[in-house]
Amino acid sequence: MNEIDWSAGAAWMKGEIIPISQAAIPVTDWGLTHSDITYDVVHVWDGRFFRADDYLDRFERSMEKCRLSVPQTRDEMKSILHRMVARSGLQSSYVSVVASRGKPVDVRSRDPRDCVNHFYAWCVPFVWVFPEDVLERGAHLYVPNDIERIATESVDPTAKNYHWGDFTQGLFDAKEAGFDSTMLVDANGHVTEGPGFNVFMIKNGRVKTPRAGVLEGITRKVAMEICAHHGLACEQVDITLAEFLEADEVFATTTGGGPVAISKINDRVFSNGAPGEITKRLNGTYWDWHNDPKMSEAVDASL
Amino acid sequence: MNEIDWSAGAAWMKGEIIPISQAAIPVTDWGLTHSDITYDVVHVWDGRFFRADDYLDRFERSMEKCRLSVPQTRDEMKSILHRMVARSGLQSSYVSVVASRGKPVDVRSRDPRDCVNHFYAWCVPFVWVFPEDVLERGAHLYVPNDIERIATESVDPTAKNYHWGDFTQGLFDAKEAGFDSTMLVDANGHVTEGPGFNVFMIKNGRVKTPRAGVLEGITRKVAMEICAHHGLACEQVDITLAEFLEADEVFATTTGGGPVAISKINDRVFSNGAPGEITKRLNGTYWDWHNDPKMSEAVDASL
Repeated sequence: MNEIDWSAGAAWMKGEIIPISQAAIPVTDWGLTHSDITYDVVHVWDGRFFRADDYLDRFERSMEKCRLSVPQTRDEMKSILHRMVARSGLQSSYVSVVASRGKPVDVRSRDPRDCVNHFYAWCVPFVWVFPEDVLERGAHLYVPNDIERIATESVDPTAKNYHWGDFTQGLFDAKEAGFDSTMLVDANGHVTEGPGFNVFMIKNGRVKTPRAGVLEGITRKVAMEICAHHGLACEQVDITLAEFLEADEVFATTTGGGPVAISKINDRVFSNGAPGEITKRLNGTYWDWHNDPKMSEAVDASL
Repeated sequence: MNEIDWSAGAAWMKGEIIPISQAAIPVTDWGLTHSDITYDVVHVWDGRFFRADDYLDRFERSMEKCRLSVPQTRDEMKSILHRMVARSGLQSSYVSVVASRGKPVDVRSRDPRDCVNHFYAWCVPFVWVFPEDVLERGAHLYVPNDIERIATESVDPTAKNYHWGDFTQGLFDAKEAGFDSTMLVDANGHVTEGPGFNVFMIKNGRVKTPRAGVLEGITRKVAMEICAHHGLACEQVDITLAEFLEADEVFATTTGGGPVAISKINDRVFSNGAPGEITKRLNGTYWDWHNDPKMSEAVDASL
């Protein structure tokens, strides 16, 4: 066991904790071939899981929406996550839980009800959605005018999913235009979200975030709690791109960094091209809360 | 080597032919975690590939649309497919070719341009989209009124993809209502396609199939060639669900069976609840063409 290098991460599959490099799923699993799969991402910071039950609550809701069912109970999942992260030795980690459709018992079946669903988990070193230099100046987002966020009527974005085709094409366009990431609008021209983050705007001290067509992000929820904590009004409403671009300050929320500044969208620069004051305050509180024992729990190999 | 059971199928991965049961991709491959992947399915019938170049042409177009690039040339892919199917011993086979985004060289990157794309292939015994008893009476399709086909503006359906969230939910609804499969309409109420098949309607001897928002199926293309061969007019147009339900005869086209009869959609019964006469004629010609050396080629282990 001493020879195994766990620094790249670990996985739990079929009852065993294995190095991340060995974790793979069959090429015929419907989780891959139909992207018939849901997941969630918890994070560990400085040896502590943050708001783990919020993430696992959402994961269970996602499974229900996708009509996926796995044998593990909530307590078993938590035990798996604690033991897996402890084994990896990672102090700060991106921890993924996944439920996949699997394969039908009779390989000829085309009926999703015939599949044996399965759970697995994996952890890697903490993933920042934006690198440090981008966080310092604020992220630059590109909104392509020919790509729409997948509609709620097609794939429910509140069931966290791997359907990223729209984001991937947007990311390519963004990167090729010199931007850090992308943000998509829906068919009605309302702002939705980006790959791995929700978005917020602040205008005249009032905070707004898109109401629908987006993942109900846990960091989005925590950011709304932090706004309340600081006495800032925050509402969930439909926002057109034109209105969004009139903001005084803009930020994103993500498990991969918390509330993080956006300083430019297309050719519109916000808060003088640097992180805004309110965003910095929200970000500070977000990381302070990581030490609050009501919101976090130490990784425990004995769980 | 004699101990290996190839009857379930074979795969080609990283230069080696392996039993299908061993073929897996990393849980961190973006082909899985972003469904950032394209594929195609060729079939082998009675020891011969059918229209292989049509499928591989489309696969190359899909890769280009997805901005995926793999090192294998067309000739190398063909060689891989021939050798893999020969090794499996399968006389009739569903043969999948896949190009996946892979992972970035620097694991911290979120830029798809940093990923090492890769090609793999696998084959299993021939997959019928509908079982034999369904083919005999014609398939029954259910059109849910609350699920829309993913829009072309979000994910291009002509780049063959694993974004099946809309189909999966439609399939669940269909199965639970006692139907064989589902067919989806788009946001404009136009008929699109089903999971794994295109659809056609025949009214007063004229054949129509949806123009846009669908995979440009190879069996769809062959069916149009067969219509021309039989002197039947066939056009690609927008078709509302109401118009579609007024058809005299309806059929689906799929690599998993060719042109196959649909005898019921929701509560509307077509062609007296049995395969229609024109569909049967098209299906007969489709299978006859499999023996035409201009359209097929024998599996060749020495290629």
